[in-house]
Amino acid sequence: MAIPVETFFLAPDAQGTLQAQIQQMIAQGILSGRFRKGEKLPSSRKLAGHLGVSRITVTLALTELQANDYLEARDRSGYFVSQNAPEPPAFGAQGPARDTIDWSRALGRRFTGGDTPEKPLNWASYPYPFIYGQTDPSLFDHANWRHCALQALGQKDFQSLTSDYYDQDDPKLIEFIARHTLPRRGILAQSDEILVTMGAQNALWLTAQVLLTQRRTAVIENPCYHALRDILVQSRCHLTPIDVDRDGLPPEALPDHADVIFTTPSHQAPTNATMPLARRKALLAKAAAMDALIVEDDYEFEISFLRAPLPALKSLDSEGRVIYVGSFSKSIFPGLRLGYLVGSKSFIRECRALRASVLRHPPGHIQRTAAYFLSLGHYDSLVRRMGQVFTKRRHTMETALADQGLGVAGRGVFGGSSIWMRAPEDVDITEVEPRLRDVGVLIEPGHPFFYGTNRPRNYYRLAYSSVPAERIAPGIELLARELEKARGTGANRGKSDEKTEK
Amino acid sequence: MAIPVETFFLAPDAQGTLQAQIQQMIAQGILSGRFRKGEKLPSSRKLAGHLGVSRITVTLALTELQANDYLEARDRSGYFVSQNAPEPPAFGAQGPARDTIDWSRALGRRFTGGDTPEKPLNWASYPYPFIYGQTDPSLFDHANWRHCALQALGQKDFQSLTSDYYDQDDPKLIEFIARHTLPRRGILAQSDEILVTMGAQNALWLTAQVLLTQRRTAVIENPCYHALRDILVQSRCHLTPIDVDRDGLPPEALPDHADVIFTTPSHQAPTNATMPLARRKALLAKAAAMDALIVEDDYEFEISFLRAPLPALKSLDSEGRVIYVGSFSKSIFPGLRLGYLVGSKSFIRECRALRASVLRHPPGHIQRTAAYFLSLGHYDSLVRRMGQVFTKRRHTMETALADQGLGVAGRGVFGGSSIWMRAPEDVDITEVEPRLRDVGVLIEPGHPFFYGTNRPRNYYRLAYSSVPAERIAPGIELLARELEKARGTGANRGKSDEKTEK
Repeated sequence: MAIPVETFFLAPDAQGTLQAQIQQMIAQGILSGRFRKGEKLPSSRKLAGHLGVSRITVTLALTELQANDYLEARDRSGYFVSQNAPEPPAFGAQGPARDTIDWSRALGRRFTGGDTPEKPLNWASYPYPFIYGQTDPSLFDHANWRHCALQALGQKDFQSLTSDYYDQDDPKLIEFIARHTLPRRGILAQSDEILVTMGAQNALWLTAQVLLTQRRTAVIENPCYHALRDILVQSRCHLTPIDVDRDGLPPEALPDHADVIFTTPSHQAPTNATMPLARRKALLAKAAAMDALIVEDDYEFEISFLRAPLPALKSLDSEGRVIYVGSFSKSIFPGLRLGYLVGSKSFIRECRALRASVLRHPPGHIQRTAAYFLSLGHYDSLVRRMGQVFTKRRHTMETALADQGLGVAGRGVFGGSSIWMRAPEDVDITEVEPRLRDVGVLIEPGHPFFYGTNRPRNYYRLAYSSVPAERIAPGIELLARELEKARGTGANRGKSDEKTEK
Repeated sequence: MAIPVETFFLAPDAQGTLQAQIQQMIAQGILSGRFRKGEKLPSSRKLAGHLGVSRITVTLALTELQANDYLEARDRSGYFVSQNAPEPPAFGAQGPARDTIDWSRALGRRFTGGDTPEKPLNWASYPYPFIYGQTDPSLFDHANWRHCALQALGQKDFQSLTSDYYDQDDPKLIEFIARHTLPRRGILAQSDEILVTMGAQNALWLTAQVLLTQRRTAVIENPCYHALRDILVQSRCHLTPIDVDRDGLPPEALPDHADVIFTTPSHQAPTNATMPLARRKALLAKAAAMDALIVEDDYEFEISFLRAPLPALKSLDSEGRVIYVGSFSKSIFPGLRLGYLVGSKSFIRECRALRASVLRHPPGHIQRTAAYFLSLGHYDSLVRRMGQVFTKRRHTMETALADQGLGVAGRGVFGGSSIWMRAPEDVDITEVEPRLRDVGVLIEPGHPFFYGTNRPRNYYRLAYSSVPAERIAPGIELLARELEKARGTGANRGKSDEKTEK
């Protein structure tokens, strides 16, 4: 690759002769790793013109660099970074040391330190990746997605691709959501009651910003999705965690006052509990009595391969009390970043204004591609195919878990993509997890899902969405073996999580 | 299109016979506009199975609906919504009245009411669209963008398309920015000093959240980009607006104390002023003296077709004091939503954590497509082609403005895509603008760019990025005619903007 001439500037207050400055500039580019071996430099004529110096000055500098083996000349084609040029330091290209700012003072707010665990980026190269929320290449309908993307790139869709929608959404996608996606959940909504978001994460974040302040109280499920808890902690509202049971959030355990209740009735995350109809009604009644809003994250409703899903909690709402969060990212692919919010106009209007301020709008191209993928029926086929494959994996998984005598804490009667597991109390999963990695098994420790200072360390999540059926039994066997070893050491005896909740 | 069976639910507490409930359910779907004429209903067998009722009950309901002309039966292919079915109300599908929430109380914070003006969505159908920041289909390199997008959709890039990057960016895009884009601006940065954002808007928003609180002070240029001012107003920091002159922000006018200075040295938005080198150094020195950070929005640096651009202010920074905001959305297309932030590691780390919380990451597919478009050289060709076309349009524009004797307030010596205009003081542009729309001319009133309660109403912005050269002179003639009429009425005499600044 040729190094563009625009890369070169003479520092206005540099010391030394012009020739020396040019030599230095090029040598530093090589030493810092910006210019790499074999890359072509601009011609001396071009460089001289660009820098406003004489060509002879440039030529002298280049000749000198050649003599020092930074550059090599090739007949008629000019100068290239020499194969024998000095190596940039192995620890990566370094600029001059130049950070003299006291960042501990300069940063007004901090957002690091949340609970969301990191997944190994190379998870797909592990033989037994029981990790959650990644795409299985063997399931994704790559060909049809590509076809829809191509269609959305066509001349006819030029405007939806390139337009500055500012605070609008793609009308085709909104229409599909309103007429097809939501009715399947029993929800009827107008287009100004729907907002397209960058995934469910973005929908939950927008909702928290609009509804919560330091003076408001939010109820969350315990355990719950850690990224939601991070969002609420950042909003600085009062947080009231309520322990879930096998039917999800128990309305009778709610406090007397709350402003917003966050819940996952379809599949509680991470326990997979589904809230029965009677409890849904009781929850609505309780929320109405205290005049609280409910935010329903309709998490994994579409992955209901064991039984048809119940209609959404939102479908029972006759007051505008329920805000509904949906996502396409989970079942299409997480890198898509596409979800939606449904709620009263006044609420959606504020979310839309905030979204415009934060990022304007989700890119038009991905909205239109998703609209085609949905309306051509590829999404439904994908979900059906996933259901078939997950049914088998789920069955294999349950058999393997029973064979190994591992404790299941929550499996979900409708489906889902993971099982919530409990190891014996003397096992600390955070100590077992790295040892499992060493033998090729990825699992997700459960303690980040819990609230408080004394979080149990013997829970974990096992997903079957990214692991082929034939790998399940051997993977579970390895898991059982490591868990058994951990019991022997009694590593967790009397130990509790000392990390302080923010 | 067939209506999916999952759309149908029997309300658990509904009144009446099952047959009546089914009839009602279907009739309501048609009356609310959800089911449209000619759409096919599920078979009676399927519907009965799904609802858990007997097939005869469903058949009786369908027959009744046919008798009432809601449905029509077609031999062997089942029931369809009748062409003679009752029309849904013309004002759009309405759900039951059901918002009983007191939203004035329920909303914790409000984000509506900002200053960003709305553009007509159908701007492209106006003959003289002198509006800013939209893509000219005749300039955009649609074929190559499509080609790059297709490549990024390939099997080889499956991971970059689908992965949950969580808080990571596409390594290919980061590498291109670090090795090619930033060096052209005189900036050297490591990959952990760069964050990909959803456009410059998102970069400015993240920066404001991380750096500002109610106890901090930000300096902004006056006039300035209204969406930036909206972001800062939402952050509730103290705002100190400083009037710009023909060289941009004057360092000598800065207050004795500020925490963050927002500036646009390459092209001041909206006046197009470019800050000379001496002033850049004085600004850096002043910021260092008060220990303030500088946020440099390197706005439109790439649209420098009249002269080569100066290196970025960030290139003069030896302390880590300057945070740099770049964008690809402006020159590729605004719907792309792709920009980047460059700053010290500690700062970028916080922005990355906040971005993860707000939206996780910009979609992998658009990052990879942009990486290809950039690295294959299409971006540079596009910018060069835009420069050639803009040179001509700019020249035509200046001639037309001079011919009509219209007052130019700021034109920018390096290029840009717009001219900042001043009408006589007795003209209120907000009154002229709708009259101009009526004759096919779109302009952008200038008052949203100004700070304070007494905003001048005689400024406006004329962009030449979306109007063909041959339309410029006739459009400017229409503009001059309307401005002249407005003078005659003296509509603005003694009038000032009474909108109160938040």
